[in-house]
Amino acid sequence: MDAGTEGSEPQGGVSSVGRVTLQQLAQELGLSTATVSLALRDSPVVADATRHKVLEAARSRGYVANRGAASLRTARTNIVGIGLHDIINPSFTELLAALEDSLSAAGKTVLLGVSQEDVARQTRTLGTLAEYRPDAFIVSPAAGTTVNDLRALAASGIAVVQVTRQVEGSGFDFAGSDDVAGVALGVAHLVELGHRRIGMIGSFPAASTGRSRLAGYKAGLAAAGLPFDPALIAEGPGLRETGRAGVLQLLDLPQPPTAAVCFNDLNAFGALMGLQSAGLTAGRDFSLVGYDDVSEAALWHPPLTTVFTRIPEYGVIAAGLALKRIADPTRPVERVMLTPRLVVRDTTAPPPTGRR
Amino acid sequence: MDAGTEGSEPQGGVSSVGRVTLQQLAQELGLSTATVSLALRDSPVVADATRHKVLEAARSRGYVANRGAASLRTARTNIVGIGLHDIINPSFTELLAALEDSLSAAGKTVLLGVSQEDVARQTRTLGTLAEYRPDAFIVSPAAGTTVNDLRALAASGIAVVQVTRQVEGSGFDFAGSDDVAGVALGVAHLVELGHRRIGMIGSFPAASTGRSRLAGYKAGLAAAGLPFDPALIAEGPGLRETGRAGVLQLLDLPQPPTAAVCFNDLNAFGALMGLQSAGLTAGRDFSLVGYDDVSEAALWHPPLTTVFTRIPEYGVIAAGLALKRIADPTRPVERVMLTPRLVVRDTTAPPPTGRR
Repeated sequence: MDAGTEGSEPQGGVSSVGRVTLQQLAQELGLSTATVSLALRDSPVVADATRHKVLEAARSRGYVANRGAASLRTARTNIVGIGLHDIINPSFTELLAALEDSLSAAGKTVLLGVSQEDVARQTRTLGTLAEYRPDAFIVSPAAGTTVNDLRALAASGIAVVQVTRQVEGSGFDFAGSDDVAGVALGVAHLVELGHRRIGMIGSFPAASTGRSRLAGYKAGLAAAGLPFDPALIAEGPGLRETGRAGVLQLLDLPQPPTAAVCFNDLNAFGALMGLQSAGLTAGRDFSLVGYDDVSEAALWHPPLTTVFTRIPEYGVIAAGLALKRIADPTRPVERVMLTPRLVVRDTTAPPPTGRR
Repeated sequence: MDAGTEGSEPQGGVSSVGRVTLQQLAQELGLSTATVSLALRDSPVVADATRHKVLEAARSRGYVANRGAASLRTARTNIVGIGLHDIINPSFTELLAALEDSLSAAGKTVLLGVSQEDVARQTRTLGTLAEYRPDAFIVSPAAGTTVNDLRALAASGIAVVQVTRQVEGSGFDFAGSDDVAGVALGVAHLVELGHRRIGMIGSFPAASTGRSRLAGYKAGLAAAGLPFDPALIAEGPGLRETGRAGVLQLLDLPQPPTAAVCFNDLNAFGALMGLQSAGLTAGRDFSLVGYDDVSEAALWHPPLTTVFTRIPEYGVIAAGLALKRIADPTRPVERVMLTPRLVVRDTTAPPPTGRR
């Protein structure tokens, strides 16, 4: 893609921003621009001595390859833009690691935009990235993202893959976990231990994950023949703060539950803090099930029973979907939902005697 | 971000690629270039009717936003690349929010690269970003980053500002906290409560913050006339895992300390988990001082005594340094170190009787 990269700049001229051009380097070295370009990419086609000479000259002259110009004429930039709605949840660190490992193995470089649940910020950040023509976007959309927002990203031929969260009906590839099944697993585990009044901590209907996990909670209750009681839901986003306040809110009810499932592990960690502040022990006095199984879950005392959503696995799958979509834009839409697994540790136990 | 981007194009003229410019569109519509630019991005900030008008005019005049072309002709892309060594520490979410707020108020868009403490990954990610000519890089360098690594980023005229961490002797602008003073504050607080055997949990000599915080620990001991005992340092990076293992390691010593300062709050949260697992209560049985004061610190039971490193403040300062460096590349290097403040909560108390 490079011999022609700077071809539109005046031969031997100085670029408008005062930097040395590929042509100038080539002229000074008495080499073709193609050779210089290949050498700058460490291509094995170029003899070692030549490559060494070019790299040294480039360094000493402060040469920077101008991809902006290159992308005007070539189809691939080998950039993948990742848009996450949040980075405060450690699950996104695990997701990002999985995405980056797979994408860099395929020769892609990852640039990250974080929306912090703000659609305007997401539009601005990904919009800027889009102008630089990444090969693909992998996006966990901010709450409130519309189908049109995603279509705008894809409009210029950029592959779009949704990860973790999705905008229902958008018709883009997706990789994530089956959250309805996942939360239902947690409820079934509590029912099996003898709990009959089970709450949910964290509820975020603005995101697809919030809707699916709430549906999983209801499905779990229904499967056990238990009634759904809206008073047993402590609403709020997937933050420690929500979990801490949420468990105290549930304990304050006239008829408190004996256990709760959580929207995510952060909610559960917050709930563990809340139980401690109330002088209660998780497991013995109140059972808690988290959601995600981030590495912190096993560190707690007592260690957290939770649902493993297989983030590293679906991260690899999302990266693969992006690569396949780049290679074949017309392939059928693929949506992968992994089935989560229950991980039983010590925050769940039969309810205290006489309180089921 | 846009009024300046195309500012060097001839007013009312035709751009070199033969398309109508943003300025022409704005002039014809009687709108600011910023409004036109936002409307073209479908920004919800712009009223629906205006957006519709702009999009229609853009379509009928054949306007195509072309950042690749724009960057060939203008010095500014209005992109700021942020390179963080880590995103697992919630302090970086707070830092990123401060940076983004300041930079977007100045019309810049933020793209993020995460090195995960891997210099090769940092070089690859920021190198790719560099090819797209951001106006500036704001970097918390991965451990092991050399002066030459930073100089390579700056070589093509991109402003480079270091935040939180720095590569000593690099001669780039810096904003962060005075970590020597900060950790010494924590030690002085423990000394005042009567502790004489004080450990340190978390120690990371590969990073400037690790060296400074260790120096602060030693300075605090020296100021109180206490000896430095290497056995009282539980080494490891700033993670919960390190803190949990670290406090148990210190408690296992033949002569255990009665208190510890920590490299960061994550270490302290891990240490709180470790104390719980050992059946001990922070404050009453063992005193702990964190470092950073991330929002989670106040949620714990007991709430964490820590040192507030003023991350949101120095984030704003780092953004300001970048903007000043962009405006005047020849201005003298500026290095800002904010003095941290002690935040006393409930994990510190006099040592158990008979154990000082």
